[in-house]
Amino acid sequence: MRFVKLTIAYDGKNYVGWQIQENGLSIQACLERAWLKLTHEKVRITSSGRTDSGVHAEGQVCSVRTCNNLAVWKFVKGLNAYLPEDILVVASKEMPGEFHAIRDAVGKTYRYQIQSGPLRNVLAREQWWYVPPQLDVDSMRRAAEYLVGRHDFSAFQSVGSKRVSTVRTITEIRLESRMEGSFQWIKMNISADGFLYNMARCIAGTLVETGKGRQPPVWCRDVLESCNRAISGATAPAHGLCLVHVQYPPQFM
Amino acid sequence: MRFVKLTIAYDGKNYVGWQIQENGLSIQACLERAWLKLTHEKVRITSSGRTDSGVHAEGQVCSVRTCNNLAVWKFVKGLNAYLPEDILVVASKEMPGEFHAIRDAVGKTYRYQIQSGPLRNVLAREQWWYVPPQLDVDSMRRAAEYLVGRHDFSAFQSVGSKRVSTVRTITEIRLESRMEGSFQWIKMNISADGFLYNMARCIAGTLVETGKGRQPPVWCRDVLESCNRAISGATAPAHGLCLVHVQYPPQFM
Repeated sequence: MRFVKLTIAYDGKNYVGWQIQENGLSIQACLERAWLKLTHEKVRITSSGRTDSGVHAEGQVCSVRTCNNLAVWKFVKGLNAYLPEDILVVASKEMPGEFHAIRDAVGKTYRYQIQSGPLRNVLAREQWWYVPPQLDVDSMRRAAEYLVGRHDFSAFQSVGSKRVSTVRTITEIRLESRMEGSFQWIKMNISADGFLYNMARCIAGTLVETGKGRQPPVWCRDVLESCNRAISGATAPAHGLCLVHVQYPPQFM
Repeated sequence: MRFVKLTIAYDGKNYVGWQIQENGLSIQACLERAWLKLTHEKVRITSSGRTDSGVHAEGQVCSVRTCNNLAVWKFVKGLNAYLPEDILVVASKEMPGEFHAIRDAVGKTYRYQIQSGPLRNVLAREQWWYVPPQLDVDSMRRAAEYLVGRHDFSAFQSVGSKRVSTVRTITEIRLESRMEGSFQWIKMNISADGFLYNMARCIAGTLVETGKGRQPPVWCRDVLESCNRAISGATAPAHGLCLVHVQYPPQFM
């Protein structure tokens, strides 16, 4: 039995999300099908976490238990030959022991993209959330600072999620902003030891409230302390979110 | 009779190009239909030039002769209400006299986008041409210098085009390159008083030959002087091209 780590990228637009579902095509289904075609072996491919319908990935990580003895570097070209052009295996690596993409993950980084300004950019509409007025990024940065550290993030998860603990540690929220004519481009990079359901999108939606000037930055602390999802900002749409990186202990990197 | 100038942006992915055709939906058809719905007036909308199927625009310019007396600023929101989300009117302006988007154009700027490096970026695939090896942008810049100025560009047009003169003046070719991990992002901005059919894409394809090291920069001069399309590089694919700006005399800006 071997343990293979796959790093994959995908455009989530045309999928129901990572996980196999009955209502449409999933990333997982495409990958497992490609694996079957390449190796004639039926496997279960586990990712570091389900991404929702429409969410993208640049560095999603998957684990596969396999009896196949193909040289590990051959999985990249081999699987890509059977994958659609919006899913790409970017790396494959043999793991030294039992590697499990969810259990062993110690951190994740997501990026949320916002396009602002008076004008919508049609060429950005599939990967950037358009928020009409120009946003005050300094306010968003100050609001974000309240969230960094170890906190109970239950105000920033979607209802219906069943995590045992809602305490997580955000190690960094970095906001980059760039003007280009009347277009404002904002990238929010957020790193944590783990994310609750929809947590990155709830945070993006909440920071935007302060960026619009509807709430002062300190409101973000009040929301956090309330532990009440009902008072935080709306969940930002899926298409602006991308899973950038998943962190593992040294032996699994 | 009024003359209205519309500036529009579109994602060309889902269209057969600017011009109305029988084999699919065109940008022009969508715009004329939106105009009809808004004003109940059937007009012909002329653009500064046809863009091919798959080519994008950030600043395409159109002219409309109209008898409608709607306040000119109302065309932006009014037309956008009837347009699909991948076509957007970004500005409308009343022209002082007979304005014709093709006849009066004095210059255009296109941008061609190339993503290079060992890895394809799945999230860029719809607006960037992927060229696998990393490109030598300095060679591309030196090659581009041979093209700037007033020349016969018949080596850089697709066969079957019927322009009277093939002499054009390129005022600038600017290449910007940026590395991001293993991804190389290259933007080529090209400005000229006019473009032959597929000229921007032929130039992009030719510069890439020098970027790959298959040809030295001076080869670009040889191609130009040959006036022979058969020896220049392949026409770069449509999805990397975007019409950025159309220049008019001061009274029509």
